[in-house]
Amino acid sequence: MGKIFEVKSRDESSNARTAVLKTNHGAIQTPVFMPVGTRGSVKGLTPDQITETGSQIILANTYHMMLRPGADIVAELGGLHKLMAWDKPILTDSGGYQVFSLNTLNKINDNGVEFASHIDGKKYMLGPKDSIGIQNKLGADIIMAFDECTPFPCPEDRLKTAVEKSIRWAEQSLNAHDREEQLLFGIVQGGIDLDLRSRCAEELVSMDFPGYAIGGLSVGEGHKNMIRAVNHTAPLLPENKPRYLMGVGMPPDVIAAVKAGVDMFDCVLPTRNGRNAFAFTQSGAVRLRNSIHTKDKSPIEEGCDCYACRNFSRAAIRHFFNVGEMLGPTLVSIHNIRFFQRLIHSIREKIEEGNFSSWADEQIENYQKCGLCRDF
Amino acid sequence: MGKIFEVKSRDESSNARTAVLKTNHGAIQTPVFMPVGTRGSVKGLTPDQITETGSQIILANTYHMMLRPGADIVAELGGLHKLMAWDKPILTDSGGYQVFSLNTLNKINDNGVEFASHIDGKKYMLGPKDSIGIQNKLGADIIMAFDECTPFPCPEDRLKTAVEKSIRWAEQSLNAHDREEQLLFGIVQGGIDLDLRSRCAEELVSMDFPGYAIGGLSVGEGHKNMIRAVNHTAPLLPENKPRYLMGVGMPPDVIAAVKAGVDMFDCVLPTRNGRNAFAFTQSGAVRLRNSIHTKDKSPIEEGCDCYACRNFSRAAIRHFFNVGEMLGPTLVSIHNIRFFQRLIHSIREKIEEGNFSSWADEQIENYQKCGLCRDF
Ligand SMILES: [Zn+2]
Ligand SMILES: [Zn+2]
Repeated sequence: MGKIFEVKSRDESSNARTAVLKTNHGAIQTPVFMPVGTRGSVKGLTPDQITETGSQIILANTYHMMLRPGADIVAELGGLHKLMAWDKPILTDSGGYQVFSLNTLNKINDNGVEFASHIDGKKYMLGPKDSIGIQNKLGADIIMAFDECTPFPCPEDRLKTAVEKSIRWAEQSLNAHDREEQLLFGIVQGGIDLDLRSRCAEELVSMDFPGYAIGGLSVGEGHKNMIRAVNHTAPLLPENKPRYLMGVGMPPDVIAAVKAGVDMFDCVLPTRNGRNAFAFTQSGAVRLRNSIHTKDKSPIEEGCDCYACRNFSRAAIRHFFNVGEMLGPTLVSIHNIRFFQRLIHSIREKIEEGNFSSWADEQIENYQKCGLCRDF
Repeated sequence: MGKIFEVKSRDESSNARTAVLKTNHGAIQTPVFMPVGTRGSVKGLTPDQITETGSQIILANTYHMMLRPGADIVAELGGLHKLMAWDKPILTDSGGYQVFSLNTLNKINDNGVEFASHIDGKKYMLGPKDSIGIQNKLGADIIMAFDECTPFPCPEDRLKTAVEKSIRWAEQSLNAHDREEQLLFGIVQGGIDLDLRSRCAEELVSMDFPGYAIGGLSVGEGHKNMIRAVNHTAPLLPENKPRYLMGVGMPPDVIAAVKAGVDMFDCVLPTRNGRNAFAFTQSGAVRLRNSIHTKDKSPIEEGCDCYACRNFSRAAIRHFFNVGEMLGPTLVSIHNIRFFQRLIHSIREKIEEGNFSSWADEQIENYQKCGLCRDF
């Protein structure tokens, strides 16, 4: 199927790069930010509205789709693209993150996890074979190996066992995979233990996946720990393959990870915060339920080209939240996704212009100052 | 301001006509169907999506807007058009219907109604002077005289008193109105009492409003009673002015009222039913929560050109309702509004082609058969 990942330009003073990632539903310009459509819908937005934010690829969650409507039904309906009315690339996760954070988790063994559905109590088995089988049925363009996700903090023993298991499961995921047009990515685990990250990366690289993710971060370890792990792990992954930092994150996390050589990001914050009237702007959070916006004629963010900012005042959006109209969450979600797409677009532009690193440091400092960051 | 209402064509065997109604925000082709944006938003849709349904004008409720965010704030923000990001025509009702159906109603006197807000208990006075003052501030293109709405059934005495009061209030509304670019419509009341309808129409016509509404119907009297009252009242209203049947209704109600010479309609059913997964189609209601649609690859309605039908299967929409995604209500509301706009477009087309009456009778019969109607 030819070269799937082509680096276009590299930053001279960091590991940042721009590239093109080719998938079965078209090419993606990286670095790329993926909005999350957990249950087959990016909450509050139609596919047309998602496209208008400049999003190139969206993520759906295997765990949620396997429970409702179920992988067989998705397949029978023509796959996720058809169900979601989204003809651009889709990525599915493995379901590992969800089943390991479930309360109803029953048994973990070498084959995976047995759990009871949070919806009807029905028993399910999810392991590498099951997860890949389901993801093959869902039909996303990029799918993920099944791994064991650990919480933070995590005892050394448990972390080590989880890494060994994830290595075995990565291999089993590869063996189970049977749809060539889907790119299967391996996931490097190891928490913030750099030796375990090295061990996991080395094993996975030898398996020759078409792309690699860094998993198990953004779980409470903080920006510094996260970036330390990313700075260590990214260079261990092949130069000529895409690198995906899962579930990240706040703007300074994204910028710092691009410096480390990461190409792909997903995060629920734009939509989750959007539904709570929390808007991202370059000068910090704007909380649209606040009464200071009652007569505020300005848009969410001056200069933003999103549908919300082109058409609605903060006062109007505050009113929609105040009276419980769905239009409020929709408008702020649109703005927030567009905010992340504008950020990632600037990142690509700066890398290609050759002035990324100094800009990146300024940006990180700015977001620290205005509080749009995790603990530093 | 020149001629505001121009009849384009008349049906030979009924009172149906097509016309152009000119407003401060553009011309409207009638007969016209107006979706309802109670609190300044047509629930679940952005203005772009409303436009895409073919809607020419939308309605907002004075009662809701006066409570939140308040008429002065709307005025300060540049009026309803600006707040709602809708640059086409808007109509506001008078608030009468809401205050007369409130439980917290305190006192009715000759000047109007004193009531306590259902939100914070704050006392308000709403009468002809107040209502027109508020509607002048909101700035809709068409505004409504303040009237007393009666329930169904209603004792003869009460109905008569209400009609006399509505006549006095219509005159007071006219006197209070001071924004020439807003068209103030009078409202004919009288329940299903044809003599009272005649009396009210005669008085209001003598006041020379630029347009007239038929109010107090669609409150439980049934299709036959409603159409009897409409058939009686519409011809009493000037040929050269628009006629608006408030709060109506189901497809056969709309079609029968057009036959009687009605030009304008509003109804919450497309969006209210849409949020409940109830879709309007020419072959009856489709209930999208029903499990028979679990694997149903067909669109809501075969041949419908709406965004939902062009992109999503019934199975996908059922899934979105099943998992509580906002996309479900949004898609069915889009379809339902488009369904009414396609209906009203066909009505205009049939009138202009000169074959409206026989088509209308067939349509009414069809909707009776498939159950998409009130009691007949
Ligand atoms: Zn914006
Ligand atoms: Zn449709």
